[in-house]
Formats: sequence, C-alpha cells, structure tokens
Amino acid sequence: MTVLTLQDAVRRTEAGMVQADALGVAVNIAVVDAGGHLLHFARMDQAWLGSIDIALKKAKTAMLFRMPTAVIGQISQPGGPCYGIEATNDGLISFGGGLPIIDEHGRTVGAVGVSGGDVQQDTEVAEACLSAAG
Amino acid sequence: MTVLTLQDAVRRTEAGMVQADALGVAVNIAVVDAGGHLLHFARMDQAWLGSIDIALKKAKTAMLFRMPTAVIGQISQPGGPCYGIEATNDGLISFGGGLPIIDEHGRTVGAVGVSGGDVQQDTEVAEACLSAAG
Amino acid sequence: MTVLTLQDAVRRTEAGMVQADALGVAVNIAVVDAGGHLLHFARMDQAWLGSIDIALKKAKTAMLFRMPTAVIGQISQPGGPCYGIEATNDGLISFGGGLPIIDEHGRTVGAVGVSGGDVQQDTEVAEACLSAAG
Amino acid sequence: MTVLTLQDAVRRTEAGMVQADALGVAVNIAVVDAGGHLLHFARMDQAWLGSIDIALKKAKTAMLFRMPTAVIGQISQPGGPCYGIEATNDGLISFGGGLPIIDEHGRTVGAVGVSGGDVQQDTEVAEACLSAAG
Repeated sequence: MTVLTLQDAVRRTEAGMVQADALGVAVNIAVVDAGGHLLHFARMDQAWLGSIDIALKKAKTAMLFRMPTAVIGQISQPGGPCYGIEATNDGLISFGGGLPIIDEHGRTVGAVGVSGGDVQQDTEVAEACLSAAG
Repeated sequence: MTVLTLQDAVRRTEAGMVQADALGVAVNIAVVDAGGHLLHFARMDQAWLGSIDIALKKAKTAMLFRMPTAVIGQISQPGGPCYGIEATNDGLISFGGGLPIIDEHGRTVGAVGVSGGDVQQDTEVAEACLSAAG
Repeated sequence: MTVLTLQDAVRRTEAGMVQADALGVAVNIAVVDAGGHLLHFARMDQAWLGSIDIALKKAKTAMLFRMPTAVIGQISQPGGPCYGIEATNDGLISFGGGLPIIDEHGRTVGAVGVSGGDVQQDTEVAEACLSAAG
Repeated sequence: MTVLTLQDAVRRTEAGMVQADALGVAVNIAVVDAGGHLLHFARMDQAWLGSIDIALKKAKTAMLFRMPTAVIGQISQPGGPCYGIEATNDGLISFGGGLPIIDEHGRTVGAVGVSGGDVQQDTEVAEACLSAAG
C-alpha cells in the first residue's frame, strides 16, 4: 500500500494555497495519513482561527469514512439515516471541504481538509490539493 | 441472571460477520455486557475506521436504555421528546445498528453494536448476532 | 508494508488467552493496527472491568511510540526525562503489558495490550500474543 | 508587534528538519502564533505517531507561559511549586523541546514544539528552528 510522505503532503498543501490565492481566500489546510494522523498543516496569514479545528476535523472525517465530508452532511441531517453521526469520533465535520486522497490502485491513503472560505471555495481548494501529483 | 460469556459474545460476532459477508459489507461488531462494558470487538478487514467508535457506542446505547438504537433516533429528532439525548453518557448513537441481547426470561443481558454498512445492513448484521444461540 | 488482518489479530488474542489460562489469570487483550486503531478485543470472563481501558491504552501506547509500554514507564518517572508523558495522546499507559508487533522487515505493524494480571503476567501474555505466527 | 507569518513558520520548520536529519532523528515540528494557535506543522516520515500530540502541546505550552517547556518541568515535579500544572490548559508538556520565539524587541511572538527524538535532540532541533531568521 502506498504510504503518503511529508513531501507529497507539502506539495498538495502548496497547490491548495495557490488555488486559495486565486480565489482570494485565506484557508487552513490539513493533510492526514491513512490512519487519520496529522502529517502536514498550514494556516495562511489572515485565515480564521476557528477554521484550524475545522480543517483538522475535515481531513480526519474524510479519512475515517473514506468519502467526502459533504456526503456525511447528506446523511446526517435531522430525519436522515445517520442523524447525530457528527458527534462520534471526538467530532466530525459534515459539510464540504474534506476529501480522501486515493491512490492509483483505488485505495484511500490519506485525506485533506480545508477551511477558511465558504464551502464551495474550501472544496475547490481541496480539489486542487488532490490534483497535485502525488 | 444469565451472564454473557466471552464465548457467547464471540459466537454472536462470528454469526454477524457471516451475515456481513453475505451482504458484501465490512463491519465493526462490538458486544457489551449488562453493565455496558466491552466484552468483545472485531473489525473486519476494510471496514471504515470511523465505524469503530460508532459500533462501540451503538452497543453501549442499546444496553444503557435496553432498546434498539433506532428507537433512540425516533425520540431524539428536533422537536422530539428527548431532543439532544445523544450528547449524554459520553455520546450515544441514535440510528439503527445497536440491539439489546435479551435472555429467555426477558432480561437484557448485553447488547451488540454494528457499524460499517448502511443502517439497514448494520441492523441485519446485528439481528444475525442476536439469532446466534447464546 | 504488511497490514495486520483481523484473522491475524484473533490468532494472537487466542494465543494470549491460552497463556493467561496457564498462568491462572483472566485478562483483557486488545490488538491495534499500525494507525493505533482497534482491530480486535476480548475480555476473558472474570477479568477486571477497569482493565478494559488499560488494555486498550497499552496497545495504543505501544503502537504510537513503537516500543514496549514498560520503556515509557522508565522515562516518565518523577525527575525522569519525559515526566508527564502519560497525560498526552488522551492517556498513555506507562507500565508493562503493551508490546509492538514487528514484521519480518522490522516494521511495527500494530501492537497488543494486555491487562488483568500483575505486570509480569500481563507481559507474559503479551509475549505469547507476539509469538503466535502472523 | 511583529506577527509571525506562515512563511516564517515554514522557514523555521525547514531549518529544524535539517537539524533533525543531521542528528539522524525523525521529528514532528509545530509552530504556533502569539495566541498559541497552530500556524504550521510537519511530521517527518517515520516519526512516532505519539509525538504529534506532544509537539503540538510543547509549542502551546511554551507560548502560554512564554518560557521553555523544560522550565515548566522544573517547577512541576512532586513537591515543586507548581506540581500538577501540566494537567491545566487541556494538557501541557513539562519536558524539553518547546521554546518561545522572541522578536528583536524581546516580545514572544510564537513558539515551536519538537518531538520525536530524545529530549536533548528535540531541544537542539527547536533551537535550530529559533536560529532561522524570521
């Protein structure tokens, strides 16, 4: 199984910051490994302090369930099949901005979490992190 | 009172895994005793890491209230009679997949919690755990 | 990198329970994967309830630092180089009974944690878990 | 007052990693701002997972009290003037490897926390982070 390296995580973070700059937002970017453990983190100047925890939890959420955090949001609404799931695992994030990193064999090897813009912007930054060559 | 044994818990877990295989899902299965304390746990290969905590909490929830976790879900919706109950007891789960183990005298002697598939699948696996002879 | 399977974890747990029986103690045995996440757990009948958490934390500790928990105990004494380390990572265990599982390439792929006997007994049970063929 | 930038934090982290490589250890490095909030984090490949939390807490500790973590260790021993202080603030670290970043006016503008080697190695890496020009 491919193991995410720090060098790879840094490259992804940098690609995300380029995209954030293009969007005119300041974000926090977290990259976790396949066990959900923090590998790299960067807070752009002027990014919200409250988004540090959100970026960390978005990355953790996307890794623990190997799916985008936005999907968790769809199933966790009041009346939905997994209402309340966000309170498990010491806190999950159930809106967009967290995406799994999937290797060429289809295996989830880590995840990125982005927070600081609106959900659409965070998602676009996370996608830029994924596009960066591993 | 019947006391759940490790042997019994293992048998129930194994029956659940057979059902999970039949459904094509990889789940986490937790069995707790009458005090809500962990007796046995197994994570099938490829099961979500985020479901470990959910399986443990489903079993705990079903034991603490001696009812299926899905029932907790019905009463804990916004506007419902026990809105917010899932935040008690260091975290409950309010959707299906946790079931009490009831002995031949109608007494709850433990509970199983299953997580890894969708709610319907988790519930079917939990029912398979209950069907296994104690 | 070798990934610990549930089958391997069950085999190690069973080997540990055979050793515990031979010693006349009832223990809790936890096996975690390379990310420190729970893979398998069993509590022998009559084992202390308070040892559930200790077994889980011993396994976590041995994995997070890739060393026996007893070594953490040596460096965390008052006046020692890492006094207070046991309060990190949501709680570590700093006495014997947790051992890393090391593969044939020298890589730590998981860990076992045993609690229920005295430290010497717990350690012997953990060693039996390690000796079981992976 | 000088505000620590991400660029500055990255430069300090990179200087620390050069020193860690020279010492032959793999460490986690965290940099926090004047509010104790995470600005940058990097885990070198092969660094202990258990050191993530320690590096983060070392940086936080050094900032919250504007002093090296080793000093907290001296006053928190059994019988010492601040015995137990490490349990405050959601957990402090009371051994070496966390150092305040002090600007040219003598003001503490952030801190670095390093964990992964022994205390002497962690301290040397943290000193290398401080030596990097802001």
